[in-house]
Amino acid sequence: MTGRAGAAALDAADPLAPFRERFVLGDEPRLYLDGNSLGRLPLATRARLAAAVGEWGERLVTGWHEWIELPRRVGDRLARGVLGAGEGEVLVADSTTVDLYKLCGALVAMRDGALLVPRDEFPTDRYVLQALAEQHGRELRLLDADPVDGPGVDDVEAALAGGDVALLVLSHVNYRSGALADLPAITALARRRGVPVLWDLCHSAGVVPVDLRAHGVELAVGCTYKYLNAGPGAPAFLYVARELQPRLRSPIAGWFAQRDQFAMGHPHVPADGVDRFLAGTPPILLLAAVDESAALVAEAGVEAAREKSIALTELVVELHDAWLEPLGFTLGTPRDPARRGSHVSLRHPDAWRICRALIERADVVPDFRAPDSIRLGVPPLYTRFVDVWDALDRLRALVSAGEHELVRRDSSRVT
Amino acid sequence: MTGRAGAAALDAADPLAPFRERFVLGDEPRLYLDGNSLGRLPLATRARLAAAVGEWGERLVTGWHEWIELPRRVGDRLARGVLGAGEGEVLVADSTTVDLYKLCGALVAMRDGALLVPRDEFPTDRYVLQALAEQHGRELRLLDADPVDGPGVDDVEAALAGGDVALLVLSHVNYRSGALADLPAITALARRRGVPVLWDLCHSAGVVPVDLRAHGVELAVGCTYKYLNAGPGAPAFLYVARELQPRLRSPIAGWFAQRDQFAMGHPHVPADGVDRFLAGTPPILLLAAVDESAALVAEAGVEAAREKSIALTELVVELHDAWLEPLGFTLGTPRDPARRGSHVSLRHPDAWRICRALIERADVVPDFRAPDSIRLGVPPLYTRFVDVWDALDRLRALVSAGEHELVRRDSSRVT
Repeated sequence: MTGRAGAAALDAADPLAPFRERFVLGDEPRLYLDGNSLGRLPLATRARLAAAVGEWGERLVTGWHEWIELPRRVGDRLARGVLGAGEGEVLVADSTTVDLYKLCGALVAMRDGALLVPRDEFPTDRYVLQALAEQHGRELRLLDADPVDGPGVDDVEAALAGGDVALLVLSHVNYRSGALADLPAITALARRRGVPVLWDLCHSAGVVPVDLRAHGVELAVGCTYKYLNAGPGAPAFLYVARELQPRLRSPIAGWFAQRDQFAMGHPHVPADGVDRFLAGTPPILLLAAVDESAALVAEAGVEAAREKSIALTELVVELHDAWLEPLGFTLGTPRDPARRGSHVSLRHPDAWRICRALIERADVVPDFRAPDSIRLGVPPLYTRFVDVWDALDRLRALVSAGEHELVRRDSSRVT
Repeated sequence: MTGRAGAAALDAADPLAPFRERFVLGDEPRLYLDGNSLGRLPLATRARLAAAVGEWGERLVTGWHEWIELPRRVGDRLARGVLGAGEGEVLVADSTTVDLYKLCGALVAMRDGALLVPRDEFPTDRYVLQALAEQHGRELRLLDADPVDGPGVDDVEAALAGGDVALLVLSHVNYRSGALADLPAITALARRRGVPVLWDLCHSAGVVPVDLRAHGVELAVGCTYKYLNAGPGAPAFLYVARELQPRLRSPIAGWFAQRDQFAMGHPHVPADGVDRFLAGTPPILLLAAVDESAALVAEAGVEAAREKSIALTELVVELHDAWLEPLGFTLGTPRDPARRGSHVSLRHPDAWRICRALIERADVVPDFRAPDSIRLGVPPLYTRFVDVWDALDRLRALVSAGEHELVRRDSSRVT
């Protein structure tokens, strides 16, 4: 079994180890294992944000000559360095929820049929589809699947067999279980059935290679504040395969989506290309943050990040089996490393109090997801093997001593 | 006629003059008259943004305990200090376009009838309504009005006389002409007819008192990067009168609008109160900027800002009449100061080239709006009377000398 010295040896041999110094580590010695919810602040992003603020102050409105290109330019950077998409296929603007609404709304307007989404999907995806189903008089179909492994190819095949599906929305990595869906196989299957799939990449972008074009993905969205480290509420990205763009119209037809924006004409005529999925004025300062943070991930390389991420989650699983299973934990994440993302879910009937006790008494920050999961995220650019070892060691000690039973039960569950 | 010494005397007597020092003036000696498009950077906002970035770096996900309240807390600050709205009636989140879509979409879903908007309305308002009209099979009715004075009470009365209107959307201050609509009278008229009005406050918030509750306004949106100085692409605000909130459901049903957000349950159940108009994760860093910048406007006071703003636009009109009318200009803004906002539109057949020449050869920054308007914005918190005098003096000299005729015609029209 891996001892602390073994974990330290893994760190010593880690080619990504130097990237840790590129982040603000101001919360140390706290062990931060919630980068799957909110990534750390890169030093370069802090500097870039200050520069962007300064540019606003100095250039004022003339800054728009360059800023107006930012949603597409930052999108191109993500496309190239992170998503395996082509130029002019990715935009950065609005939130994941709004981007989901724009793309799903566009799809529903041009295709009949039910809207299909896993029952265990992240809430905002289900809610957006529920509202669209109500607006368009469609059925919302919830796909059931194993709570740990998530929907497999067979589940999707069975759900599509009935026909009459307008759109399938699916997370690449499930927010709770960390299960990694088989994106290539499910995309290929759905294409054979003629059903568009929108992939939610929130929990995979930057840490799992996606290669959207290689796999024939047509639609995707994702956030930038988890493994892309662009800050709380940084704008999301959307991807629309070039071939599909001319056929889709965003339901939110704002002036930034207008073909000749500054003619201020009437009626609305969607811009050519991916710009038609813009809406209102994009958040320039935060686009600078996404640009800088995404460059750091691209510099490290998503393939290298994936390799280390697997090694880190393997260590979590190993220590869980050795130390935590005897304490009543079960693994809420697939055992096959090829079938999980970069966080591990540990299930326990008293998960909420254990999570609070970890934060308050053991200086370890994971997060809780209802009803019974503690998520441990291990973003490979700044998480060390010894961090994982120490965190699991503290978790074991805390639960063994029953310290979580001292936590008052209440309803606060923000993190 | 006001000479330069007279303008300097007005500055010397100006009670708001000290506020100028609260802004970054890094572009001096350039004369910036485009704060109606993008406001200057307040020193306090620069510091607050740096602090917010630091807070992300240090607190990481635990910051959400406070951040989650920000859209409503910053909304309450705007409500109190700027909008004359009540607590729990204003949210800051998303762009003006997306906020328009949410509120108009909610309205259209519960009321039959046509969607009414002035033909001269800011494009995004028209486009959003056009798309909603198509989605819901409604008529989009364009209201014609005088291009300088904008829609008056009589115009609106005539447009509503035909009945069958679901919603009227209208700017408080027109983006091109600067005409200030009679918000109290139009709101009262529409309420008598039973037609909801959504006011677009982009060009009035922070510089014209609005008193939303006093006038019985039911719905409003507005941006924060003009007279509220919160930076390029800072999030917009939306206002929904408390009485109306329970009856409206946003078409974009995201997880931040869910009653018990972290239960992650199904189906979507809208939160009580104004939170139901949230969608996805709000941009925390930019909410800090809005909070700080709005505090500065509230400290100066919107009534005081309005008084100085009127004096500044009066000076523009006076100098236009004396110097520019003989050069072929006409006033594109109402002469009655009670009927205009804080920018003045000067019309000229060669406006685009004159605007370029002002920026490139005279170090004056106005902006151009098709087809023939040069907009001069005079945000009262940092614009001096001598700035106005000097800018108009340079404009007169430039056009007298025919310098604008040296500008190459091309299609770049970003500012």
